[in-house]
Amino acid sequence: MFKRLLMPALLAAIAGCAAQTAGQSGPLLNAKVILVIGDGMDDQQIAIARDYLVGMDGRLTLDRMPERISAQVRTVYEDDPGRPKYVGDSASGGTAMAAGVPVSVGRIGTTAGSDQDLPNILEMARAAGLKTAIVTTSRITDATPASFVAHINNRYCQVPEEMVKVDEDFPQDSTDCSADYKTNGGPGSIAEQIADSDIDLIFGGGSSDFDAFIDGVESQTVGQTALANGFEILRSPEELEDPPDDTKLIGLFASGHLPELLRGTDGARAEFVEHVDGKPVWPEAFGCEENPAHEGAPKLVDMTATALDVLGRRQGFMLVIESASIDKASHYWRPCGHIGELGQLDETVQLVLDYAARNPETLVLVTADHGSSAQLVPEKTDLSLQNAAPPGRFARILTPEGSVMGVSYATNDSPFWEDHSGVHVPLYLSGPRATELPQFVYQTDVFNIAATHLGLADSWPRQ
Amino acid sequence: MFKRLLMPALLAAIAGCAAQTAGQSGPLLNAKVILVIGDGMDDQQIAIARDYLVGMDGRLTLDRMPERISAQVRTVYEDDPGRPKYVGDSASGGTAMAAGVPVSVGRIGTTAGSDQDLPNILEMARAAGLKTAIVTTSRITDATPASFVAHINNRYCQVPEEMVKVDEDFPQDSTDCSADYKTNGGPGSIAEQIADSDIDLIFGGGSSDFDAFIDGVESQTVGQTALANGFEILRSPEELEDPPDDTKLIGLFASGHLPELLRGTDGARAEFVEHVDGKPVWPEAFGCEENPAHEGAPKLVDMTATALDVLGRRQGFMLVIESASIDKASHYWRPCGHIGELGQLDETVQLVLDYAARNPETLVLVTADHGSSAQLVPEKTDLSLQNAAPPGRFARILTPEGSVMGVSYATNDSPFWEDHSGVHVPLYLSGPRATELPQFVYQTDVFNIAATHLGLADSWPRQ
Repeated sequence: MFKRLLMPALLAAIAGCAAQTAGQSGPLLNAKVILVIGDGMDDQQIAIARDYLVGMDGRLTLDRMPERISAQVRTVYEDDPGRPKYVGDSASGGTAMAAGVPVSVGRIGTTAGSDQDLPNILEMARAAGLKTAIVTTSRITDATPASFVAHINNRYCQVPEEMVKVDEDFPQDSTDCSADYKTNGGPGSIAEQIADSDIDLIFGGGSSDFDAFIDGVESQTVGQTALANGFEILRSPEELEDPPDDTKLIGLFASGHLPELLRGTDGARAEFVEHVDGKPVWPEAFGCEENPAHEGAPKLVDMTATALDVLGRRQGFMLVIESASIDKASHYWRPCGHIGELGQLDETVQLVLDYAARNPETLVLVTADHGSSAQLVPEKTDLSLQNAAPPGRFARILTPEGSVMGVSYATNDSPFWEDHSGVHVPLYLSGPRATELPQFVYQTDVFNIAATHLGLADSWPRQ
Repeated sequence: MFKRLLMPALLAAIAGCAAQTAGQSGPLLNAKVILVIGDGMDDQQIAIARDYLVGMDGRLTLDRMPERISAQVRTVYEDDPGRPKYVGDSASGGTAMAAGVPVSVGRIGTTAGSDQDLPNILEMARAAGLKTAIVTTSRITDATPASFVAHINNRYCQVPEEMVKVDEDFPQDSTDCSADYKTNGGPGSIAEQIADSDIDLIFGGGSSDFDAFIDGVESQTVGQTALANGFEILRSPEELEDPPDDTKLIGLFASGHLPELLRGTDGARAEFVEHVDGKPVWPEAFGCEENPAHEGAPKLVDMTATALDVLGRRQGFMLVIESASIDKASHYWRPCGHIGELGQLDETVQLVLDYAARNPETLVLVTADHGSSAQLVPEKTDLSLQNAAPPGRFARILTPEGSVMGVSYATNDSPFWEDHSGVHVPLYLSGPRATELPQFVYQTDVFNIAATHLGLADSWPRQ
């Protein structure tokens, strides 16, 4: 449910507060926050990617950042919002970071149980006169970007026709966002909310979401609505090189999510270990190769470069960047997919750090929304002589340094996807006051850190 | 293999170097290092223990330490010591920390491939006139404590009769330490090396190891040898309260490892999920309770208090403390065991931090030797409506805050034990220069950090 009347009043109050805080603490309009989210990027996912990408003696750009602390995930039960739930998703994790409030799994910018809209950090920044942008490798309507731009009770209400859906095969994916239908006076689906937003730039995939007709007006697509609202829409990577100036930008560089950069040789991924006469047949080790499906798609670093170029012409901003498919590759047993996407994130972090070096008022945060399934285990179990093998899906990855790494996926035995993990996640920082944090904070503190740096609040986490 | 002639010469050289370094950098004899090792304590194990012990809104003592960085594990192949191996054990991890050199799995203070003895930090500290001590909840001959006091090619050569062993059921556990037999002029088993050592204090379990007869002398036990070498042996927790003064101390407070502090209700642990008619039967959630087997055994904090009391009367020391059964409980599917042992570690860290507050020349390090199997997953998979369940062993833990936490063990399907994980491990610090470290170091840097603080080397890790 939404509170149309409440939100503008809240944001006006925030703008007032921001102006006041800014007066106290310095030039608000100069402050910049770049938040990089590795979707599902917990320490296991980083360790697997590091060993492949730079070797056991090497260091990722992440590893060279000045600070790394940890953040406790923040999720509660929908039917009992005071009770903590130990495993979250991109919606609850994204909303915790965007709005500073723990919510239930699947919620986008709305409270658990009571379905109230929560102002998010990008809205607050815009209300205070700052620029805002999102870059992602997923559909721009996916849960992580949506958490920073929309308010709706279900992450899967991405386009008008998905607002009410009964999924008989996966009842847990059914939706009822009917209260938010535009025809009911609501803000509509996530795509419609993006088209109606004042975000300065949002790049990623999901062009098909913008070809959908908006609710109640079958002659107008969501994309046409965006154009009518002053957005220009980029659709080819070439357009990234010379983007139009002085206009809001939507970038839609794939029909759905952007394809993963790497894949296992010939598409190899983790599989259940076969057994012959009760003995496991160890899967052949495979390396990673460029994913042909990625050809023609922009890299995360390319989209980010354009975003920084566009934003960099102006004073003060918050930019959210997501490497989305660390999570998706872990869901679907693709270790090379996850390794490649973490590599994309790492490359993008280097670009961001270079930008921050030239713009020292920039605070860089790199974190994850939740943990994932992949676990770094022996390439052959220590019990291999006893014919033991991993019970879940398993891959043996041949690394460039000539060793073999075991990666296990064993959160469930379904043919559909793996679950998340409830482990705390890393939070890397670089920039003003980055060293002035306790080494353990809550995921909601990402909001507090960013809001304080931007002069929107005075809620810097303390021990 | 050992190098009897080499070691004393090396240590004399180290002592000279230490004196010189000390002259440059301050009062060496005052410096103290307390290294706390949570065996197998990676971020997953910490997250599971935190959610149970203090709840999702709570903080462990670990979480309140001023610094947390990460350490890359260091392990190589025995037959190709230049090639990194991604998953280590307590022997390779312990030796990496004790001697600053990556070795192969199973090795105690000796080089991979060439079997040369490696001087360890406690030997170097003693050579420089400092006191040294080890406190553990395992047998004191187990791999982690052994790495700081012994040199032998196989961790399982703990007592004379295990020096050469053919294990038909588990060939990987067979040993051949015959070159180190005392009757061959060697230093003997790990227990014999402890009995012959000059360590000031070593507390833990393993009294049966000291009842064994030493090699070649069937009338004398290892324990009798220790007494002849100037040790006093404590065997009851009561003796911890008023330990003898001015003598080397061995504490043996259990026949084998000290029992774990907690267990699942009525001994419950993780089990394979049963299926009826193809549908998983979700295991009943259980909480943790005191383990009756632990009654009469000292807690880690009690042994540590005595160690600090004994050491605190003198200038300068290095104390190694191990909570051993985080690892062991994860090997054997006992989530409450691991939670209780991590709680013991956390309680001990508080005692150590209190000591350090009164003795500000104390550098406190808390880390792990390797990762473990337990993974924090949904208490019912998100695919539960599709009849999916975790493929490995699984427990649903009822937490004191009234939620349920899923813990999965799925590195292999054997009835024997789980494997380790190759994830990097946390390294918490408090004390002088603790803030002057990059946030990502190698496991071997634990040696470098400790040795530098003690004035034994000048090898502080840099970015």
